[in-house]
Amino acid sequence: MSNEFSEREARVRESFSRQGFMRHLGAEVTALAPGECEIRVPYRKEMTQQHGYFHAGVAAAIADSACGYAAYGLMPVTSSVLTVEYKINLVAPAAGETLIARARVLRSGKTLKICAADVVAVKDGKETLCATTLSTIMAMHDKADSPSKT
Amino acid sequence: MSNEFSEREARVRESFSRQGFMRHLGAEVTALAPGECEIRVPYRKEMTQQHGYFHAGVAAAIADSACGYAAYGLMPVTSSVLTVEYKINLVAPAAGETLIARARVLRSGKTLKICAADVVAVKDGKETLCATTLSTIMAMHDKADSPSKT
Amino acid sequence: MSNEFSEREARVRESFSRQGFMRHLGAEVTALAPGECEIRVPYRKEMTQQHGYFHAGVAAAIADSACGYAAYGLMPVTSSVLTVEYKINLVAPAAGETLIARARVLRSGKTLKICAADVVAVKDGKETLCATTLSTIMAMHDKADSPSKT
Amino acid sequence: MSNEFSEREARVRESFSRQGFMRHLGAEVTALAPGECEIRVPYRKEMTQQHGYFHAGVAAAIADSACGYAAYGLMPVTSSVLTVEYKINLVAPAAGETLIARARVLRSGKTLKICAADVVAVKDGKETLCATTLSTIMAMHDKADSPSKT
Repeated sequence: MSNEFSEREARVRESFSRQGFMRHLGAEVTALAPGECEIRVPYRKEMTQQHGYFHAGVAAAIADSACGYAAYGLMPVTSSVLTVEYKINLVAPAAGETLIARARVLRSGKTLKICAADVVAVKDGKETLCATTLSTIMAMHDKADSPSKT
Repeated sequence: MSNEFSEREARVRESFSRQGFMRHLGAEVTALAPGECEIRVPYRKEMTQQHGYFHAGVAAAIADSACGYAAYGLMPVTSSVLTVEYKINLVAPAAGETLIARARVLRSGKTLKICAADVVAVKDGKETLCATTLSTIMAMHDKADSPSKT
Repeated sequence: MSNEFSEREARVRESFSRQGFMRHLGAEVTALAPGECEIRVPYRKEMTQQHGYFHAGVAAAIADSACGYAAYGLMPVTSSVLTVEYKINLVAPAAGETLIARARVLRSGKTLKICAADVVAVKDGKETLCATTLSTIMAMHDKADSPSKT
Repeated sequence: MSNEFSEREARVRESFSRQGFMRHLGAEVTALAPGECEIRVPYRKEMTQQHGYFHAGVAAAIADSACGYAAYGLMPVTSSVLTVEYKINLVAPAAGETLIARARVLRSGKTLKICAADVVAVKDGKETLCATTLSTIMAMHDKADSPSKT
């Protein structure tokens, strides 16, 4: 990967580390490439809905962050990233030891990036699709994401 | 309110109390009426995105739960509730001491309920609209939500 | 209404008149105010789905155009308008003599406007909600909509 | 393909033929398989938005019908089909001689089918992605789609 992407990757990881909510979820960025991002969350009781599965809110949150950072990896270093909107379909109960969101940029415009993410639950090593999202991410140009760089 | 709704309200509160994720967020049901539900979360660092505002994932999670429970309040006692899908538009940074999701059922079909929720941030007593959602909630008939009643 | 809005209204009507598809539907702009737009379509066989009701595609198309023009009425004269995305929930069969989409801008940012529209069917003078939408509209600055003004 | 699918295919084509709106668009079903459907519309002035491209309403309408019929092909013969909701992202101007929607069922539940469709414009033989959708389709059991079979 190019130096330019290394710089962007560092920026993604630094931004992610400032998200108190992702830390509160126990979420980690487990893969990153230009226009792609994967985020994982291990199962624990704090992640559940009323039947003991992962809460849809966890799936939505990591899918949203994965889309945002997949898009952010394609943005100039001087910009920051913002989710405009997304839609999620919950297609199966999220039962398993780990929840994984995998996002990719479908269309990369200058201001807006259109992204999709799939969320799978891993149970006994087998992945099941739980949710799928479609989202619109915006680049805020000339407004660096990190407070120290503003 | 009728006895029938009292029973449904008790059921909503009992189901909510089993959501480990809502507890992990510090979320509370602060109003409940037939076809309506309000959920609040106080601000803390664990709720933040990279700029220190409430993370969109928190707004989405409480909007989703509020829609689900607004709909659940209209369902027969023998049914359980499931979010099919939702869409969220994030319209302003969620800056404030408290985040409030207010949901209402727009259309109550037998199997599907269409709901909308607004999410506002309260700062110095003033509410600002941060997000708005549109969602589809499903009644699973003859499948009680509580494990003890299954 | 101000002169400025009159100019914007004229621009909306001129842009609408260039939409061959709206003409093909028999659609008309029946109300216009800053941040609001109403579009109507009379019933005919060419508008139907397989059961003889208005096709969801007609509801979606006039809701989309109504959102776009509600937003466009708030944009500078030198800009053009683009739908980024929308979501529609179809809540009842669209049975009636006329279909009406009523759109309003929920949040007017510089680049993006978030809009909502309700679609009602009118039968024997009574309105029934058939569909509701949530959409993201973009202003293309310094790119006039009309070819003669480009 | 099995006899059972042949029967379902015939039912899809018969239902499509009753959609006055699809005929008004000049739309045709050009491919059909279990859980998949392709619909095409040739360009003409009646299909345009204000800049002469295909109107987003045409893209949305054929994507919606393609999703509905992709799902319908998996439903029992005694059921009818209904779009609950969809979301569409418009990712590029729809410029070309033909617009094609290709839909596939992502998850086939008993009552609900979750579908995705891509819409491409074909210009000088080259396809460009214009729109992508995510939708929820419902089976109405024991309610045949064709009036003659009700």
